[in-house]
Amino acid sequence: MKKDTVAAKTLGQTVPRIDGDRLWANIETTAHFGAMGQTGLKRLTLTEEDRKVRDWFVAECRTLGCSVEWDQIGNMFATYPGQNMALAPIAVGSHLDTQPGGGRFDGILGVLSGIEVVRALRAASHVLKHPVTVVNWTNEEGSRFPPAMMGSGVFCGVHDLSRIEAVQDKSGVSVSEALMAIGYQGEQATGHKRFSAYLELHVEQGPILEAENVQIGAVTGIQGVSWLDIEVTGVEAHAGSYPMGMREDALLLASRIILAVEAIAASHPPGVATVGFIRAEPNSRNVVPGKVALEVDLRHPDDATLSDMENLLIAEVQRVAPRNDIRAIWRKTPATFNGELVKLVHDQAESLGYNVINMVSGAGHDAGHLAGVSPTAMIFIPSRDGLSHNVQEYSSPQQCAQGAQVLLHTVIEIDRLFSGNNQT
Amino acid sequence: MKKDTVAAKTLGQTVPRIDGDRLWANIETTAHFGAMGQTGLKRLTLTEEDRKVRDWFVAECRTLGCSVEWDQIGNMFATYPGQNMALAPIAVGSHLDTQPGGGRFDGILGVLSGIEVVRALRAASHVLKHPVTVVNWTNEEGSRFPPAMMGSGVFCGVHDLSRIEAVQDKSGVSVSEALMAIGYQGEQATGHKRFSAYLELHVEQGPILEAENVQIGAVTGIQGVSWLDIEVTGVEAHAGSYPMGMREDALLLASRIILAVEAIAASHPPGVATVGFIRAEPNSRNVVPGKVALEVDLRHPDDATLSDMENLLIAEVQRVAPRNDIRAIWRKTPATFNGELVKLVHDQAESLGYNVINMVSGAGHDAGHLAGVSPTAMIFIPSRDGLSHNVQEYSSPQQCAQGAQVLLHTVIEIDRLFSGNNQT
Repeated sequence: MKKDTVAAKTLGQTVPRIDGDRLWANIETTAHFGAMGQTGLKRLTLTEEDRKVRDWFVAECRTLGCSVEWDQIGNMFATYPGQNMALAPIAVGSHLDTQPGGGRFDGILGVLSGIEVVRALRAASHVLKHPVTVVNWTNEEGSRFPPAMMGSGVFCGVHDLSRIEAVQDKSGVSVSEALMAIGYQGEQATGHKRFSAYLELHVEQGPILEAENVQIGAVTGIQGVSWLDIEVTGVEAHAGSYPMGMREDALLLASRIILAVEAIAASHPPGVATVGFIRAEPNSRNVVPGKVALEVDLRHPDDATLSDMENLLIAEVQRVAPRNDIRAIWRKTPATFNGELVKLVHDQAESLGYNVINMVSGAGHDAGHLAGVSPTAMIFIPSRDGLSHNVQEYSSPQQCAQGAQVLLHTVIEIDRLFSGNNQT
Repeated sequence: MKKDTVAAKTLGQTVPRIDGDRLWANIETTAHFGAMGQTGLKRLTLTEEDRKVRDWFVAECRTLGCSVEWDQIGNMFATYPGQNMALAPIAVGSHLDTQPGGGRFDGILGVLSGIEVVRALRAASHVLKHPVTVVNWTNEEGSRFPPAMMGSGVFCGVHDLSRIEAVQDKSGVSVSEALMAIGYQGEQATGHKRFSAYLELHVEQGPILEAENVQIGAVTGIQGVSWLDIEVTGVEAHAGSYPMGMREDALLLASRIILAVEAIAASHPPGVATVGFIRAEPNSRNVVPGKVALEVDLRHPDDATLSDMENLLIAEVQRVAPRNDIRAIWRKTPATFNGELVKLVHDQAESLGYNVINMVSGAGHDAGHLAGVSPTAMIFIPSRDGLSHNVQEYSSPQQCAQGAQVLLHTVIEIDRLFSGNNQT
């Protein structure tokens, strides 16, 4: 990839610009910490591998002239000075932890692009009014310690620190113990920072940008999510000696519900609905199933519509399977990003000559929490084949650089427009 | 229960008759060998518990004047003499082994009623022309060693003895070792017996007789069975970031197949079809399933119709889920019982004043193998709530006695009609 291909076209040569090769080299360097096969990463939060990438983050950011600190839950903040240190920083970031069989881009791209933004500003001796803070949120994935988006959730006041510190992994190690073990339990109180804005660059983790041949998604918000557990009861019976007309086959009832779940999503675009888990009892070929458990995931960007989907599903389960048990497991209301920031992202992408669309994020992100406390937006780049949480996850060097370029230009634009009316 | 309630009405007091109390007492006595809770039995084949009930069988039958022997696979034959010992015996029997959580009736009723037939003949000093052989087939259930109906299968030449002897249980013990351990590996070659007829009294293991308020089922045959394994492949995807229109949800495809399986059975009465087993991958709530495995059980009394059902299912799977893997796992052609014997059973039941219907057995039985080598029929009595393979399995003392009474009268009728034209 030639650096020129991602040069800022409208702002000319004197302004900072992303070095795509440098960014890609960083992706390759940090991919050694928890490497899994040729392309994968297993870097669970607060493990030795996580410590290594955190140490790298500290060293790299200090080299660039940032002050680096971390809070009680291990969220890391590398702040590059601005002209007016009284202004709340513009924050850019994401997370450096991965799924057990994850890729090199999910989360990582957002943090490394934040560092690259600082490098670009520094290389161009371009001093912004605002400080710029690169953030690495602790435990976005939730694979080792539930819940996902843990660090940003504590930061934004969604979770209680002491309760989260006590959460244990499968070996009985608590979050607090794991933080101490790797030396990243800071003294700084979590959540005592304010940002002028928060921007998160991320891989889409879905197929839309690739399918539409678009380089950039300006993310308008994050879908609401509702998790329901459904258990339907029939009558366990001998598969040979029970006539069809006398059966009450729980798997048959469950199948009707699975089809209803799809129909509910289809009639509420752009909502999605999934039955990802099924368990039949006794689950033996020649026994008519007596009980089936389903785990349902409903999502919609509009909260009232999400409620409609929930209610329709409950009504359909009641109709199809009168002997049921429906439990609401978890619900997250949709996050709506700051309209002004979303427009800035969109405009910067356009002015860089990229195809851009506004879109809703299907997956959850730290930005969803941040939207509750700061003006927030996200930038998506395409994921090859829509794959994520997978060692095959891939975005090209050019795509990564294009995303970082939009991030850089949006930071500069925010700095220009948000002129000091939001001091800490 | 009063003995009079099951007295033979048409044959008068001078002929042999079943003692329902004595039969019930035998059911209770043998239920100690492998008792499980108040009503259940765990008497896996060729275990110590099985040895105990076999020892009881030997002692009880010898007391009644039977000669008792067992063959290489442990099938037991207790023969009560007839006037003409050159005639092939009339055989009555079933099996004394149970499922891991079985009841007191499945199989056991057929063997103990056979003994009660001998007792009744003896008590009335009623000597038949034919010898009567009470049979206990080894390992009908197949729970410890596959396949089910093992002993009768070897006896009828369906399975090879040496291959079956080598079959191991989960602890690595072979059938041959288990037979020797309990002392029931006989020297008599398996299958070197011929019967004038084979009759098996059994609990229905289904709900039909109870629902129709009928005391006796004259069983015309056993449904054919076809086992198919179906795997459908979709595309594993993120439940949040994949739009509905771009998904290929393997569980949704599987649900359509499950509904098709029911529709195929419904359009081919009295066939039945069941998906008893399902496994989704990765089976995680927020991942669109990429692969689903189903295990299907199709049954029909007519072989050609069973083939039609198989072909329809295969066509439907191809249509619904082009990326599939369909494997035929096991197939058993329907068994048709001897029309003359079935009519005898029906007539005896009627002449005893019982409501009787002809019916097909939904479950497999040793009689299915025997039908290939001897004139064969079965007698069913109702199962409470259709339950079987369950500690709640139950038929009343009166129902058991009624079944045994029909068995006795049918044996006497066979003896009268089959007058020596089928010598060994």
